Amino acid sequence: MNGLSSINIYSPADLSQSLQTMDTPCLLVDEARMNTNILRLHDRLQKAGVAFRPHFKTAKSWDVFSRMMTGPHGPATVSTLREAEELIRHGVTDIIYAVGISPDKLPRVQRLRKGGITLAVLLDSVEQAVAVASASDPFDPIPVLIELDCDGHRSGVKPQDATLLLAIAKELTPKARLMGVLTHAGESYEARGQSALEAAAEQERMAAVTAAETLRAAGHPCPVVSVGSTPTAFTAQSYEGVTEVRAGVFVFFDLVQAGIGICATDDIALSVLSTVIGHQREKGWTIIDAGWTALSSDRGTAGQAVDQGYGLVCDVAGHPMADLVVTIVNQEHGIVSARPGSPRLDCDLPIGTRLRILPNHACATATQHDRYHVIGAGENTVTEIWERGRGW
Amino acid sequence: MNGLSSINIYSPADLSQSLQTMDTPCLLVDEARMNTNILRLHDRLQKAGVAFRPHFKTAKSWDVFSRMMTGPHGPATVSTLREAEELIRHGVTDIIYAVGISPDKLPRVQRLRKGGITLAVLLDSVEQAVAVASASDPFDPIPVLIELDCDGHRSGVKPQDATLLLAIAKELTPKARLMGVLTHAGESYEARGQSALEAAAEQERMAAVTAAETLRAAGHPCPVVSVGSTPTAFTAQSYEGVTEVRAGVFVFFDLVQAGIGICATDDIALSVLSTVIGHQREKGWTIIDAGWTALSSDRGTAGQAVDQGYGLVCDVAGHPMADLVVTIVNQEHGIVSARPGSPRLDCDLPIGTRLRILPNHACATATQHDRYHVIGAGENTVTEIWERGRGW
Repeated sequence: MNGLSSINIYSPADLSQSLQTMDTPCLLVDEARMNTNILRLHDRLQKAGVAFRPHFKTAKSWDVFSRMMTGPHGPATVSTLREAEELIRHGVTDIIYAVGISPDKLPRVQRLRKGGITLAVLLDSVEQAVAVASASDPFDPIPVLIELDCDGHRSGVKPQDATLLLAIAKELTPKARLMGVLTHAGESYEARGQSALEAAAEQERMAAVTAAETLRAAGHPCPVVSVGSTPTAFTAQSYEGVTEVRAGVFVFFDLVQAGIGICATDDIALSVLSTVIGHQREKGWTIIDAGWTALSSDRGTAGQAVDQGYGLVCDVAGHPMADLVVTIVNQEHGIVSARPGSPRLDCDLPIGTRLRILPNHACATATQHDRYHVIGAGENTVTEIWERGRGW
Repeated sequence: MNGLSSINIYSPADLSQSLQTMDTPCLLVDEARMNTNILRLHDRLQKAGVAFRPHFKTAKSWDVFSRMMTGPHGPATVSTLREAEELIRHGVTDIIYAVGISPDKLPRVQRLRKGGITLAVLLDSVEQAVAVASASDPFDPIPVLIELDCDGHRSGVKPQDATLLLAIAKELTPKARLMGVLTHAGESYEARGQSALEAAAEQERMAAVTAAETLRAAGHPCPVVSVGSTPTAFTAQSYEGVTEVRAGVFVFFDLVQAGIGICATDDIALSVLSTVIGHQREKGWTIIDAGWTALSSDRGTAGQAVDQGYGLVCDVAGHPMADLVVTIVNQEHGIVSARPGSPRLDCDLPIGTRLRILPNHACATATQHDRYHVIGAGENTVTEIWERGRGW
């Protein structure tokens, strides 16, 4: 657990383990489902004639991410500089760091950009633009994207705010290099139904195109017009004026995406394997060895039509078990019971029974684990171990 | 991020870093506050004449835990077998694994028990007792504690259920060794006010003593009577019949404990250092670079009188900033705004400003990080780096 013992060591014995006997809790990836999810988005965007810039933040594993990429050197999106370091180590050269830059991170950005790496930074204020221009080398200007707020979800310049857009572009020139605009339709997670999702995607597209045109009209080249969120990536009807789409969570999908209607429960490639350790039968509780350290505390489905608690319970083969969900989590204990409002299920799963829990939010559940145990569809043994990183 | 790059390497340059310049987000521990918290519980239990068995699950760091222990070899409580492995590596020989045992974990338990290690397991069913007895060696019996459900919070035998208690004890004998009973007053987290907390502690004590007497009356030695939870550890008025107290989160304290009234906000030794990366001024939002990957999604104060959002905001010196809380978290973004219901605060913290976020739940926030950056009270530089483990 200290420096040495926290090294992610795994032995050949970790492979070919059976889901019935391996240590629990642990994280499983169904490789066939994952591959299908990737193929589905690649196909869709290829047909639409728009580039794909996958996001590393969900998988945080080269083994997963190398399958998501459309070329060996990128493009790629990251949410931390540590993610960028990992991708650069694997030969990726075209990266957007898609979290607003703070000035203190610029020296590290500059170190990573040595050797011809395109590591673009994101900003939405004149204050940041001044800092980036000041840190930049006119002979190797830092590439910059202006973040847009297309739906009030989080950060970014309002796409109609020409004054601010142009003020930022002016501060960047000529030391840094304005590369384009970027928006994330975070509010698409609240959209319900195909037409609402299509509208969210169109709003995202319009925001990006509007801002790019404002910048170009004032003489600023703006080659990159980047949009993205998993819900809009699967529902957008037009990419006119857009140069690339970003998405990350689609690689595994999760119960939140299923609740939005972007995937089926059966498409979810990620699950947490756990073991029954007890019962409180008068309450209809089955106690498992997966608490929030394994599942996360994410309650992303709490506001959806179907609240999946802390995760939907499946048998060891991955088949959902009617209305059983994880209703309470402590640090290392999960309590499985009937979904609130469902008739109580007098399940009697013997101690030692293996269960698989589908996650609310794949990013949040995956981040609780150091590795993926890879299985085939309907298979019961581990075929590969994929390491996973974290930190900043 | 893979096998090699995830090694917890830190260089001497990581020490003596200033809170104003080090990479964010990161986890800080105020050593003086931590030491005061430890001393407070040690003093209290020593005066009460009861032994203390600290829980490793919050800190998961030998540097922290060695200060919590009352002797070099224990006693200690763990919540995973990986925690037990770490403690054994540091010479701890007296450990309770305080999560209900599943039969598949018994071979690993037996491996860890080589060399005179007392690693006791917990159970609350005849089914588990049969499995433990079957895995046990009569010449070196596995020590067992029966888990009690003192308040309906989670697992355990009802303390009045003499039939089940005796049936478990019967199955254990003679191959395994009944060492005692253990209960955790998890519902004490819902108690409000001194008398309710004292009542929860007394209920916990009575549960343990009642069950122990039932077992002894039937001829089963039951030397250990173990109780514990941070709220009851600080409020119990009697330990008659109790041999030891367990607690873990008290080492750092957190906003949940402050909400219960067990500590003051000023006692909280853990915080997440973060940096302002943007604003949405028309909404009163300040955006920081600490989302749920740094803070966790824990909303433990949501049901308390004062809801602290995803964490209470302090300046870099650790002083709380009026009514500013983290109201929304995404993966790497936190949104700081006025507490719901408070007057909107038109704070204007420049980009680059360092803020410290106090956690709802110290265990959940700490588990998102690989190391503690140690600072002194009111100090601004890092004096030590303490590694932190995780996993199972």
